[in-house]
Amino acid sequence: MSSTSLSTSQAEVAIDGDRLWATMHTLAEIGATDAGGVARVALTDVDKAGRDQFIEWVTALGCSVHIDRVGNLFARYEGTDPSRAPVVIGSHLDSQPTGGKYDGAYGVMVGLEVLRALHADGVRLAAPVEVVSWTNEEGARFPPAMLGSGVFSGDISLEAGLGSTSMQGDVLGEELLRIGYSGPEMPGERPIGYYLEPHIEQGPILEEGDHTIGIVTGVQGVRWYDVRITGQEAHAGTTPMERRSDAMVSAARLITEVDNIARRRAPAGRSTVGVVEVEPGSRNTIVGTVRMTVDLRHPDADVLAEMDAELHDFVSTLHPQPQVQQIWYSAPIEFDTEIVNALRSAATEQGKAPVDITSGAGHDACYISKVAPTGMVFIPCADGLSHNEAEAITYEHAVAGAEVTLAGVLRLGS
Amino acid sequence: MSSTSLSTSQAEVAIDGDRLWATMHTLAEIGATDAGGVARVALTDVDKAGRDQFIEWVTALGCSVHIDRVGNLFARYEGTDPSRAPVVIGSHLDSQPTGGKYDGAYGVMVGLEVLRALHADGVRLAAPVEVVSWTNEEGARFPPAMLGSGVFSGDISLEAGLGSTSMQGDVLGEELLRIGYSGPEMPGERPIGYYLEPHIEQGPILEEGDHTIGIVTGVQGVRWYDVRITGQEAHAGTTPMERRSDAMVSAARLITEVDNIARRRAPAGRSTVGVVEVEPGSRNTIVGTVRMTVDLRHPDADVLAEMDAELHDFVSTLHPQPQVQQIWYSAPIEFDTEIVNALRSAATEQGKAPVDITSGAGHDACYISKVAPTGMVFIPCADGLSHNEAEAITYEHAVAGAEVTLAGVLRLGS
Repeated sequence: MSSTSLSTSQAEVAIDGDRLWATMHTLAEIGATDAGGVARVALTDVDKAGRDQFIEWVTALGCSVHIDRVGNLFARYEGTDPSRAPVVIGSHLDSQPTGGKYDGAYGVMVGLEVLRALHADGVRLAAPVEVVSWTNEEGARFPPAMLGSGVFSGDISLEAGLGSTSMQGDVLGEELLRIGYSGPEMPGERPIGYYLEPHIEQGPILEEGDHTIGIVTGVQGVRWYDVRITGQEAHAGTTPMERRSDAMVSAARLITEVDNIARRRAPAGRSTVGVVEVEPGSRNTIVGTVRMTVDLRHPDADVLAEMDAELHDFVSTLHPQPQVQQIWYSAPIEFDTEIVNALRSAATEQGKAPVDITSGAGHDACYISKVAPTGMVFIPCADGLSHNEAEAITYEHAVAGAEVTLAGVLRLGS
Repeated sequence: MSSTSLSTSQAEVAIDGDRLWATMHTLAEIGATDAGGVARVALTDVDKAGRDQFIEWVTALGCSVHIDRVGNLFARYEGTDPSRAPVVIGSHLDSQPTGGKYDGAYGVMVGLEVLRALHADGVRLAAPVEVVSWTNEEGARFPPAMLGSGVFSGDISLEAGLGSTSMQGDVLGEELLRIGYSGPEMPGERPIGYYLEPHIEQGPILEEGDHTIGIVTGVQGVRWYDVRITGQEAHAGTTPMERRSDAMVSAARLITEVDNIARRRAPAGRSTVGVVEVEPGSRNTIVGTVRMTVDLRHPDADVLAEMDAELHDFVSTLHPQPQVQQIWYSAPIEFDTEIVNALRSAATEQGKAPVDITSGAGHDACYISKVAPTGMVFIPCADGLSHNEAEAITYEHAVAGAEVTLAGVLRLGS
């Protein structure tokens, strides 16, 4: 189908679109589900099979393989300048239990295709190029998500990571040993010059705007809250409105305001109430207790703090008054300007009319951005759907994302 | 403690407060719970014991006892004019599984005390006076509530009433036979000249206003709705606000408007959302589906129809749009003017400063009002609490309600 050439100082290096597409779908056979998705949950035998396949492919390119104590898996394609830290491309090979073929796998397969493109033309950059698969990005079996990259960045201790226990009582460290992917390196010791993560958007923005490439400028900040509202149960027929302490009515006003808080900051703001639990839950009894969640997001930490302040201000006006507890804060992340510019320029030169985009979801790149210059390339996915066996991308978009990544690697690694 | 005399054309007939209070608490020992309440669920052995005790008491007054095929239990104290239909006082002897001592029992015990007061002074009115205990008012074991009075009024067929089956598979008609309370009369055949039901308010209005007596002018109309809202599940982080179809936000707006619909009609209007169920119920996923209930009440059928129209008008403005289905309508009831006036005048003459009140809860009087002139007297209960073992009333209020009832019987039965 498509095969694009890219000019570099060293040589003509080109993505082979058919090779990328075929390899990605060969990988998707490992853990393939009847519904067309993938079940390659972290540190299962299927995850081991995916890792083994990856190692077979990179070893054929003469790469060395390096594994750290939390199972993060690196394939290294040497450069010509021993003083240079590597340009690292990656994402994750694990999936949700009923996941899609592209979430995570796309980034690792693009990295592999970049190595193959370099290898095919016998090109070596000044910097080494590495491809990484981070352990347990999904967190579907072992909490939390992005565990491998979090241990690598030092945000999660090695002990916590290895001790993570599944609902079934399996321990991550033991499962790593069982499948043979407990390596000798200390996570975080391995240098990273630049980190690039190609990924499907997992949202609708690119598809809706008919864009092929999103250059990710950063990741939204997130504040999570648990809210509890205690009113008074009473008879729906005999209790006058003015005597009520109706927890559901306070909750409804709060939910509407939570929605407005983000709408006042369109298009970047986000706010969601996803959990609402009421007691006693009887048709003719006023609700006594509501437990609910609030999720506020914005790429700018100051704006997110304003949203937090508005939430608390509004809560103080309500009767019965909600008790609001912030249970998690993830500060907004701004990706490295040099990488963002390199990727944007590359995509523009390729005629792909890239758009800047903020990631609404977490990625391994969030943790890695704390220890190395980091950037991401997004491609569209059908209907913005992800974490779903119906996850779908097009051949053209898949290739375009790889071409932009390759161009970025050539710029950053030369 | 208190003993009030009432002048009548025939004699001095007086409520004996101590006798009423003692008898009511003797009855409460039948099915007494450790927490101070009563468990005298319909057609259990305990209900039979309560009925047996009642028959023992009324038989001692020379009353005849009459039982119909659904177990409604009448004690008849003869009058002097064979052409007169009886003045009937009553309520129910059954209770909730963890019920209080006064809900229902108060009305039957006031009826008994009226008979005793007449009997003590050898007074016979022109009309007979009967005291009734309706079968299965609570509906706690056999649905629906107010079953015995509903069969009597013809709103529930005898077959449906006798065939009502408990969650445990017990059948009402069989249980009636088992405890020996399946009588020969056809429900509804027995004439009722006037029906008076003394009852605890089961709401907060009388207590809050420091009122002793409420003259019930009628019962609210009720409309029940089931509501389903179907939006679209999506990622809380990646889905822009303007692209969302958030079922919870529509639900929140609807809940707030439901609350406002009744508040615009204070103090008589009532509106409640008691059940709210959301799916998928995940912190970082936009809610795809909400199922909820709406309960609207007003004593005026036209106003209740306006409230219904406002509900539908508002729903049509929402996106995603709720599907609203009315599943039940109970028209408002206005009690008989002659009875309401008689009770109000009696209470006023006794210096009790009665207030008019609309009942928010259903009572046997609702069904009986369809076949006979009907009225109710309310007395306060502590904190408006009922259907609860902590249900409480004062001696003074209990006696006052009996005095008003007696005065009403003397006026209506003379």
